[in-house]
Amino acid sequence: MATVTPPADPEADPRVKAVFDDIRATRQSDFINNVWRYLAFDPGLLEEVWRDVKAVLATPSALDPKVKEMIYAAVSIANACDYCTHSHLASARAKGMTAAEQADLLRVVATAGKTNHILNAIRPPVDDAFLMDRG
Amino acid sequence: MATVTPPADPEADPRVKAVFDDIRATRQSDFINNVWRYLAFDPGLLEEVWRDVKAVLATPSALDPKVKEMIYAAVSIANACDYCTHSHLASARAKGMTAAEQADLLRVVATAGKTNHILNAIRPPVDDAFLMDRG
Amino acid sequence: MATVTPPADPEADPRVKAVFDDIRATRQSDFINNVWRYLAFDPGLLEEVWRDVKAVLATPSALDPKVKEMIYAAVSIANACDYCTHSHLASARAKGMTAAEQADLLRVVATAGKTNHILNAIRPPVDDAFLMDRG
Amino acid sequence: MATVTPPADPEADPRVKAVFDDIRATRQSDFINNVWRYLAFDPGLLEEVWRDVKAVLATPSALDPKVKEMIYAAVSIANACDYCTHSHLASARAKGMTAAEQADLLRVVATAGKTNHILNAIRPPVDDAFLMDRG
Amino acid sequence: MATVTPPADPEADPRVKAVFDDIRATRQSDFINNVWRYLAFDPGLLEEVWRDVKAVLATPSALDPKVKEMIYAAVSIANACDYCTHSHLASARAKGMTAAEQADLLRVVATAGKTNHILNAIRPPVDDAFLMDRG
Amino acid sequence: MATVTPPADPEADPRVKAVFDDIRATRQSDFINNVWRYLAFDPGLLEEVWRDVKAVLATPSALDPKVKEMIYAAVSIANACDYCTHSHLASARAKGMTAAEQADLLRVVATAGKTNHILNAIRPPVDDAFLMDRG
Repeated sequence: MATVTPPADPEADPRVKAVFDDIRATRQSDFINNVWRYLAFDPGLLEEVWRDVKAVLATPSALDPKVKEMIYAAVSIANACDYCTHSHLASARAKGMTAAEQADLLRVVATAGKTNHILNAIRPPVDDAFLMDRG
Repeated sequence: MATVTPPADPEADPRVKAVFDDIRATRQSDFINNVWRYLAFDPGLLEEVWRDVKAVLATPSALDPKVKEMIYAAVSIANACDYCTHSHLASARAKGMTAAEQADLLRVVATAGKTNHILNAIRPPVDDAFLMDRG
Repeated sequence: MATVTPPADPEADPRVKAVFDDIRATRQSDFINNVWRYLAFDPGLLEEVWRDVKAVLATPSALDPKVKEMIYAAVSIANACDYCTHSHLASARAKGMTAAEQADLLRVVATAGKTNHILNAIRPPVDDAFLMDRG
Repeated sequence: MATVTPPADPEADPRVKAVFDDIRATRQSDFINNVWRYLAFDPGLLEEVWRDVKAVLATPSALDPKVKEMIYAAVSIANACDYCTHSHLASARAKGMTAAEQADLLRVVATAGKTNHILNAIRPPVDDAFLMDRG
Repeated sequence: MATVTPPADPEADPRVKAVFDDIRATRQSDFINNVWRYLAFDPGLLEEVWRDVKAVLATPSALDPKVKEMIYAAVSIANACDYCTHSHLASARAKGMTAAEQADLLRVVATAGKTNHILNAIRPPVDDAFLMDRG
Repeated sequence: MATVTPPADPEADPRVKAVFDDIRATRQSDFINNVWRYLAFDPGLLEEVWRDVKAVLATPSALDPKVKEMIYAAVSIANACDYCTHSHLASARAKGMTAAEQADLLRVVATAGKTNHILNAIRPPVDDAFLMDRG
């Protein structure tokens, strides 16, 4: 189903092993999901993507971790990314998203999808009040 | 700039006036932004869109109103909807989104955009652990 | 506002003039809109795009010309193409789309935008009854 | 394959049963396709999506029902929604879309995809003649 | 899995046979991949798509064939087209794309996905220096 | 026009100044385009985006710098990112893209847009020959 060949024994490569070890330590779980097993085809790309995802999702910041996963899932849905939608909804559930919150998330995403299409059709001028860089 | 003609005196139509009155009451503000002024070209469509947006954004539900606006903005960004991005980021700010939270939102949206593209390229199989309807 | 330089005197090039003449003859109008003036930066590309658009929109086929313009506009809206949305809604109006039909078009496009997002989120399996190539 | 768990016996919930009954009555068919079976995980969301889809697709309006399904399918194709593309092309066929019309639909969608990309690349200014809200 | 029925014996139609023969001759290979087998449901559409693809990918032009396949794959990834992503990455490999180049392609596509989202969120004015049609 | 407020004197912040200095040194030019001036609203985000863009576009790798800018522009076009399309086409020109190559790029992007839509509509199964992870 994929466009790259995942290595049969990814952790034979020490760079891959170091990333996998960090994933396990960060998540406190032995489960390495497919995105990392496939990205291991190129250790440099694996390191870069994990660094990015860890920085934004596994590092304390202004937003709650659960909210960050929900925003991440919302973008993935809009971009029609199958794998990302599954994995980030699962992560949001693992970080405490309730069934009611998931349904609410879908409701917001769906309504945004609706009005995004309406406004991309009507194309009204953006109100001056919304602009942050007017003189 | 638009594909429809906004009515010169929209509140002359009682259906439009009723929606505008409800917008002002719901938001406790006299400001009617352009999306509603332009949608007034078709009172039925105006009623429907306002009903949807009010139901999801101005009605208490499982998620915090500020978080819902941020998710709404995230989808709008992914869909390249200019008007929606401006208006929902402005609404999120009005509902308390701080500058640090806005930067964090951008960081999540950007990283999602990155990994969405990588995974739409690599297309690994979705892990069984993520599926909710396996037998 | 553009990424290419439109030629100052496009019809000085005989290949451009031939396309512009055919546009005027096909549409029975002297108006050459900007897409053709800008595409004239590369006569080969201009010829190819006009040939494609003429074949699908100005040639009798199974679907009504007005319906074809509406479908064209719907795709352009979903793809967030500003110019295309404006020009194909204008063409649909020129081919007889009424205000009520335009509002109906927006309603369909908006509802599709909503359910596309919901189903890209939920990702149910496609029913066997919908597949055309099952054995 | 999905991100939500469809209930094993959805019609045990009276709100779900009411929607399913209305789907059967509206379509005069016993077939309940997967989108409704999966949306049943949240009866409120099921009610909302069915109300929207029924209003736009099963209610007489300015456009022909077959044309509305074709526009719906066109947007779903542009949004890369797998389920929606299958289900709305099937609905269009059920409402009388011929093989020649389906091929014509694909031709319009494809040409729109082509010119949307060209014009999102070239970005010519929108002609004044196309704007509906110029002073 | 598809929305059209591929003909059981496509080359029984002389128009389909002519296209398949040209595909085999152009590629110097007997392999006819599924896109052509399914497009054969409408010989006119098959002819048109093959003419387009042959013109851009199998005809010498300013860009290297391998680079054209990589650009083609990049667009397909951004558009979430499953089949296209697989087929054009395969074609790029067949035309000499190395593993290092494929990883580099993914890196560019991913970074573009990231900054596209950031800039669709921030929406800074385009610098005058980038415009090609300023007076 | 933007959703953030660019700082009036961005280089008063030493983190911003360091990034701007590196941009000038890397590009051997004094021109700081708007994306950096606006991103300066959050120095951490500015640092991260510049680090990413520099790594992929200003660091020698398997692909030619001009080709990388063209792929970057192609993704930006598909994602309807106005700013990105202008800036990366300008960068590609600055790195040697000729007018003929730019027209060729548009031709590939447009044909990909066409076939992406056709195949997202038809949805044929991916040929086994294209899969890299079959057993």
